[in-house]
Amino acid sequence: MNAWYVGAIATEVEGEAFFHRKILDTSVMFYRKQDGSVVALHDRCPHRFAPLSLGKRVGDEVSCLYHALRFDADGQCTHNPHGTGHIPKAARVRSFPVQEQYGFIWIWMGDEPADRALLPDFSPLMEGHPNAIAYTYMAMKSNYELIIDNVMDLSHIDHVHGEIITTRGQLSPIVPTIQETARTISAQWAWKQTPPIGIFAPFLPEPKEEARHFFDITWSPPANIQLTVWALQGEGDGYDESIGQYDLHTCTPADEFHTHYFFVTRRNHVVEDGEFNAIKIKAMHDAFHDEDGPLIQAVQDEMGTSDFFSLNPVLMSNDIAAVKVRKLLQKLIRDEQSADAVTEQRSAAE
Amino acid sequence: MNAWYVGAIATEVEGEAFFHRKILDTSVMFYRKQDGSVVALHDRCPHRFAPLSLGKRVGDEVSCLYHALRFDADGQCTHNPHGTGHIPKAARVRSFPVQEQYGFIWIWMGDEPADRALLPDFSPLMEGHPNAIAYTYMAMKSNYELIIDNVMDLSHIDHVHGEIITTRGQLSPIVPTIQETARTISAQWAWKQTPPIGIFAPFLPEPKEEARHFFDITWSPPANIQLTVWALQGEGDGYDESIGQYDLHTCTPADEFHTHYFFVTRRNHVVEDGEFNAIKIKAMHDAFHDEDGPLIQAVQDEMGTSDFFSLNPVLMSNDIAAVKVRKLLQKLIRDEQSADAVTEQRSAAE
Amino acid sequence: MNAWYVGAIATEVEGEAFFHRKILDTSVMFYRKQDGSVVALHDRCPHRFAPLSLGKRVGDEVSCLYHALRFDADGQCTHNPHGTGHIPKAARVRSFPVQEQYGFIWIWMGDEPADRALLPDFSPLMEGHPNAIAYTYMAMKSNYELIIDNVMDLSHIDHVHGEIITTRGQLSPIVPTIQETARTISAQWAWKQTPPIGIFAPFLPEPKEEARHFFDITWSPPANIQLTVWALQGEGDGYDESIGQYDLHTCTPADEFHTHYFFVTRRNHVVEDGEFNAIKIKAMHDAFHDEDGPLIQAVQDEMGTSDFFSLNPVLMSNDIAAVKVRKLLQKLIRDEQSADAVTEQRSAAE
Repeated sequence: MNAWYVGAIATEVEGEAFFHRKILDTSVMFYRKQDGSVVALHDRCPHRFAPLSLGKRVGDEVSCLYHALRFDADGQCTHNPHGTGHIPKAARVRSFPVQEQYGFIWIWMGDEPADRALLPDFSPLMEGHPNAIAYTYMAMKSNYELIIDNVMDLSHIDHVHGEIITTRGQLSPIVPTIQETARTISAQWAWKQTPPIGIFAPFLPEPKEEARHFFDITWSPPANIQLTVWALQGEGDGYDESIGQYDLHTCTPADEFHTHYFFVTRRNHVVEDGEFNAIKIKAMHDAFHDEDGPLIQAVQDEMGTSDFFSLNPVLMSNDIAAVKVRKLLQKLIRDEQSADAVTEQRSAAE
Repeated sequence: MNAWYVGAIATEVEGEAFFHRKILDTSVMFYRKQDGSVVALHDRCPHRFAPLSLGKRVGDEVSCLYHALRFDADGQCTHNPHGTGHIPKAARVRSFPVQEQYGFIWIWMGDEPADRALLPDFSPLMEGHPNAIAYTYMAMKSNYELIIDNVMDLSHIDHVHGEIITTRGQLSPIVPTIQETARTISAQWAWKQTPPIGIFAPFLPEPKEEARHFFDITWSPPANIQLTVWALQGEGDGYDESIGQYDLHTCTPADEFHTHYFFVTRRNHVVEDGEFNAIKIKAMHDAFHDEDGPLIQAVQDEMGTSDFFSLNPVLMSNDIAAVKVRKLLQKLIRDEQSADAVTEQRSAAE
Repeated sequence: MNAWYVGAIATEVEGEAFFHRKILDTSVMFYRKQDGSVVALHDRCPHRFAPLSLGKRVGDEVSCLYHALRFDADGQCTHNPHGTGHIPKAARVRSFPVQEQYGFIWIWMGDEPADRALLPDFSPLMEGHPNAIAYTYMAMKSNYELIIDNVMDLSHIDHVHGEIITTRGQLSPIVPTIQETARTISAQWAWKQTPPIGIFAPFLPEPKEEARHFFDITWSPPANIQLTVWALQGEGDGYDESIGQYDLHTCTPADEFHTHYFFVTRRNHVVEDGEFNAIKIKAMHDAFHDEDGPLIQAVQDEMGTSDFFSLNPVLMSNDIAAVKVRKLLQKLIRDEQSADAVTEQRSAAE
């Protein structure tokens, strides 16, 4: 709960319009003030519970459609057209801290004060030509952890996806190198293949010759996965000398069985080609939508409302990273809950 | 429960046909006998629970489609084509008291004997030219109390509806005058506006000049609201000298979250104009369907299965009448339930 | 549970394809090995619970789409492409005993060893010309017992179905002769009618004259009903000298409120006419689909989640056979459950 979730792609909240999304079981509305800054309010009038996003804009304020109570960007009621116009003390809606970063609008839903330091550093997204970055969104009918599992276990790509990103079976035998910190899990794979992986081959010096390949992924809470994949031929070393891309997968639960799945990709080649950029994000969106998506949702249907570990999954070497994420996430949630319990006890004692 | 609910508009039950509607969680079928009188039966054969409304008419009786048990208008089985033809004592369905009044078919679903005196007097509906009255129906995905709230708080009309019935903000500041009896809540608003309200202006002597306006609404249990609205210019006084209309809004719960919403309007001007009558009821239906309906249903979605007061609504002067209705309705339901409890204790003691 | 259910019509599982069906709340996949024999596996990979039926065929084995674990026809994992390729002991899926008989694929879902003797003898289906037998399937939104009730009480045919199989009211008055064994309930009806029943009249010597008619049905657990119906004129005696047909109705629960309804009919007249065969099965399918189906599903809707007997049905002479089946089925289920309990106690004691 006390974490930054993506509420929307920055371009989803534009102009004068109100944008609604259900986040962590709560109705949220987003809009931009006239200075361009983003506001996130509980999308429920405290009077009779009408969604404020059905209402009208009055400058930087929101007028409820039902009875025209008006709220400012802090959620404070500023106008009551009824009776004497007295504004009851309780006439306010919750305003959620937001920050616009990396092309996303991030929202803090927790009870603790928003801690900007808890937003991980995804600054590589911002470095480079504007035609080399692209965003997409999918509404998934599954729990968000099944989506994290999918990305943390990259061994699936040879089996689920087509020719374009096949490693020709090279990936599955590799047990990834794992690195752990108090709040992150990383996994690295390195291998060689001939020809190089389809998405990079055309841009390498020798498209049909062997290349060294690397995957480097890092999960950070609550549901962010940075994924860097690159290929090198010849003397080159490191991502900067490679043909590669830096992606962020990030999930925001709508509720227990529905997830907002956001994705952004930044590449380091043909960076000025806007047409290629559009083709690339469409291809990636289609792969998620047509290949990962139906599979993850079929897994959710098969699991029903059961907890993952309660079904005794047979786990293997390729599950190392995904299982470490599930365990660390459980620990972080437990820590947050016991911190809450301590806070509540203190409040009760005072 | 022990109250008259509208089961259908009289014209919904016509000819030889059976008409089905779910009322208070119970399947009900309606039909007219050959003498035109209306019958309401539990729409469930006591044999194997097939809906009788799927069956066939045999004179004034109903033959079940599944095995041809036949029931008369009192719900008594009159024919069993099986075996010896013996009719088991239990072979009967519940027949509900009905009365056809004011263009509606009213049904009594309670366990107490039907009390015709409990149907309020809506006789103004019946006075006047047949081209000056019109009925409509909407299936609403909400609890019925949210619909009553909508009508009892008329301050919404400036905010929800369009130019045609705007009071240009005059209504909201007015705290209505409230009158209460043991079983009714009334509210009155009076104001002046220039030009007059759009639905009446064309029929007033001076369509662009100031007129005195009046709203007078009365709720009576379980879910009836009489609404009179009129405008006057010059010396005239009272509804009879005005341009105005007398409406009835009445709700019948299908179940906790689905409501049958019936509406009838009787006007006192251009009373012979059938074409205008059709246009007017269509405009009112569209306003409910396109403006109130989506809002009320969005409120229901946002409330989910929560009780209204449990969500701590911020109530204001415009809620006076609606809240008084909710409180009186709660009291009447509690009274009915304790009367039931007393009856049950007496039965147990005997 | 410890019984043979129809999993599929034999022709539903053909070629290289995987066939999925939910049976007794369990996902099952069917396919044919290269030798034509049928395999039924739990349609859930034990790794991450993806449906195996989304996967790929590798000879007689199934490769999971998600991470390419491969399983043989016994459900044993034979290939793990990940890490060292070690196959965890738990990496197996349940393989269900099947037998292909009478044009159906029968599946055993119980914990007890499959007992081939428990499949009733439906061998009359197999006797005769291939153009005189036809199969159909319907997905029903009802509990399976409501479908059995429908067939066990044939008195419904005069009321539910059209001219083509009417007995002109002759069937309902007859109380069928009942025969019972430890595991079967049979009912017989015999009557005369003029003209003969529509489906047989054109094939009798005198299509407009009186004929003797017979229905003979036998239920056997869990949900099989053999139904023989025939008509005779003149000196003829017995089914073999008649115009008639031998049908099997059999139901497989998907879950408590969804049932797979299978039907096969074998006739003893115009046996070589393939075109008539197609017309006949289509007419029977349409009668179930358009006449019985909506009625049974309406009964289910009206019953909701209530148990049949808890609603106090008014039962009559025509219900004798259906009620005997419900009672015997309850007894057999209780017997199975107490046998299970005894087994569990013994296991616990050991």
